[in-house]
Amino acid sequence: MTFDALWDSILDVGREPATGGYRRFAWNDADLTLREWFTGCADQRGMSVEEDRNGNLWAWWLPRGWSGDPKDAFVTGSHLDSVPDGGAYDGPLGVVSAFAAIDEVRARGIVPNRPVAVAAFSDEEGARFGVACVGSQLSTGALKPERALGLRDADGIPLGEAMAKAGRDPRHLGVDPTLTDRVGVYVELHVEQGRALDLVDKPLAVASSIWPHGRWLFTFTGEANHAGATRLVDRRDPMLAYASSVHTARRAAELHEAVATFGKIRVLPNGANAIPSEVLAWLDARAADEDTLTGLVERISGEAHEHAACDGVKLRIEAESITPIVEFPPGPRDRIARALGQVGDIPVLPTAAGHDAGILSAVVPTAMLFVRNPTGVSHSPAEFALPDDCRAGARALADVMAEWITADENA
Amino acid sequence: MTFDALWDSILDVGREPATGGYRRFAWNDADLTLREWFTGCADQRGMSVEEDRNGNLWAWWLPRGWSGDPKDAFVTGSHLDSVPDGGAYDGPLGVVSAFAAIDEVRARGIVPNRPVAVAAFSDEEGARFGVACVGSQLSTGALKPERALGLRDADGIPLGEAMAKAGRDPRHLGVDPTLTDRVGVYVELHVEQGRALDLVDKPLAVASSIWPHGRWLFTFTGEANHAGATRLVDRRDPMLAYASSVHTARRAAELHEAVATFGKIRVLPNGANAIPSEVLAWLDARAADEDTLTGLVERISGEAHEHAACDGVKLRIEAESITPIVEFPPGPRDRIARALGQVGDIPVLPTAAGHDAGILSAVVPTAMLFVRNPTGVSHSPAEFALPDDCRAGARALADVMAEWITADENA
Repeated sequence: MTFDALWDSILDVGREPATGGYRRFAWNDADLTLREWFTGCADQRGMSVEEDRNGNLWAWWLPRGWSGDPKDAFVTGSHLDSVPDGGAYDGPLGVVSAFAAIDEVRARGIVPNRPVAVAAFSDEEGARFGVACVGSQLSTGALKPERALGLRDADGIPLGEAMAKAGRDPRHLGVDPTLTDRVGVYVELHVEQGRALDLVDKPLAVASSIWPHGRWLFTFTGEANHAGATRLVDRRDPMLAYASSVHTARRAAELHEAVATFGKIRVLPNGANAIPSEVLAWLDARAADEDTLTGLVERISGEAHEHAACDGVKLRIEAESITPIVEFPPGPRDRIARALGQVGDIPVLPTAAGHDAGILSAVVPTAMLFVRNPTGVSHSPAEFALPDDCRAGARALADVMAEWITADENA
Repeated sequence: MTFDALWDSILDVGREPATGGYRRFAWNDADLTLREWFTGCADQRGMSVEEDRNGNLWAWWLPRGWSGDPKDAFVTGSHLDSVPDGGAYDGPLGVVSAFAAIDEVRARGIVPNRPVAVAAFSDEEGARFGVACVGSQLSTGALKPERALGLRDADGIPLGEAMAKAGRDPRHLGVDPTLTDRVGVYVELHVEQGRALDLVDKPLAVASSIWPHGRWLFTFTGEANHAGATRLVDRRDPMLAYASSVHTARRAAELHEAVATFGKIRVLPNGANAIPSEVLAWLDARAADEDTLTGLVERISGEAHEHAACDGVKLRIEAESITPIVEFPPGPRDRIARALGQVGDIPVLPTAAGHDAGILSAVVPTAMLFVRNPTGVSHSPAEFALPDDCRAGARALADVMAEWITADENA
């Protein structure tokens, strides 16, 4: 099947007509529809599908005559879920390109000497339960099953209950001991989420590293009161210290040449005529190295505590997740450049976005391919990549796959 | 029935165990339960109940031998709904005190020479559909039925649909032409929402005026984007201009000796790793007179537009409701002081909180009695009044009722 036909086949799934954005969240209806779509794609290609204990999907193409468990496979894919009102490309582009690459490799008559798999990792964005890369983190042991089972969505539904409702058994969550044996390399193709490729006018890049990043919950607690009848001097309004902290985060990010964002907030009771009792705000912070990230978050935290003290409100700061820097290994990266005939010519970029490839790199060799994003916009309905660049990405993935699964070193 | 027994009979309705606050919103289950409770109270007292076209409840006690429609009634009451996680007193204290006052007046053997009614106005807080005093505003014509029917709750459910689900016909909404004939005076008893009575150590006050006040929706529109991969210089983050406007509102309120609050906010898409596309924020502003209020809101709006321009985001400001100053007429106020034997001694206070009595004052004589609030806290689970003060309030209301319904001027 062509890349274009595959791509079109999921464009309607989970799309919100009012915004044009996608709402594909872990274990919701759209997510389940995409899981069925994944199984259908595998069936059409004679690939066997398994969903592992953590909800990650694997479609296997084994060499003729292969017996027993897969081993040292060339694995490619990405994820199918989205942020709230996210774009079409972030995640699905990698899965669609993986299936398209298999079609291309087969059309070239290539016979693999090692297993190939397409993977779709569960709940990469963390949009519903607040923690990113749940599927890959569980499989590598970076996320403990007890913690995952304690996660709840905005309606208070625990992750385990959402999985059970979807017919999965959450008691199985945990480390995947087969991962290191099965995965020879994981190559994730992903739309770029900045404008670096656009600025150098290239369609594709390979990743050098993922910035260390994390998410911190700031809980500002004041006192609910009547917005009309309460004198300013009698107020303990947590919105003020929050607002000050928004500016602190921005200024600190500038000073550290990093990024820091308050993009999610929950206000209690959130009534127009009530001074809030509590403002919960999530800080997303990322920097080029771990010391800088630590310094950035310490600065923001310190100033936020000062703002809170000035306004007579309490502040509690909790780290929800901290992901160290990921340096992708040079071996697979160089091999990709060779396979593409672009040694010394393909851009090598760091990224400030987290990915399953970053999580998996703790236990298996990984690499990433980026496809140009002309506007740099991501996590938005306006996220976009040119059709020609997407096709070039799938073709490049086929080239890489072809090299990997026919090389003598595998025999 | 004693005040205490009546009071205790609704304490469980609509109370959220997690917060101890009330969630009695227009036409939700708690609201419907309270409407049944109201009807039960009227039944026990041989009062006939009607729900008018706008959902306001009226329980009638007519003089023996009265025929035809009620006329020039002494009406007292308040509302039964709450803000999100509101307190027990704001609203229900006036309705409970009204029934308790009738019991007291009857226990004294008083025979009325004019009709008496207990009223509970629908949707005073506007917690669900965003506009306050919906029931009284519809009845006086201050709110047009077309506009009311266009209101939607946070789940997108229109007011009309919520009413229809509760078995009401929303096509009936509109001006109540019987109001001016029926209501001779409306006396609303309410818990104070500031600390003025506590500061002068008095249990009761009468209202002089209600500050002009209003609610404005600020919509800051930027561009959703990835919180990691988007450079600071490429961002159009509406949270920054919102945060600046929070401080502008506070500072402007200080300068105008007024109050201004951003207590309700909605962020899109509200993802921890997404720069928001839009921040919707509601400004509640109140001042001692209308010129000051206008100046206050103009200043906040002007500076907010500057903040938005600086950050490259768009800002639209819409007035959702503006309520002019209400000066309660001196006639009923003086008569209350006489009935209480406290001429020259009872505190006369302005309030910055809106009330149905303020809305009704446009078409009928109105007055308000305030019961001391020792902490001043309102719109919060911590809202509180002393039992002795509540009983004193109900007794005072009985004194006022007794004077009004036996005075010769009514004969």
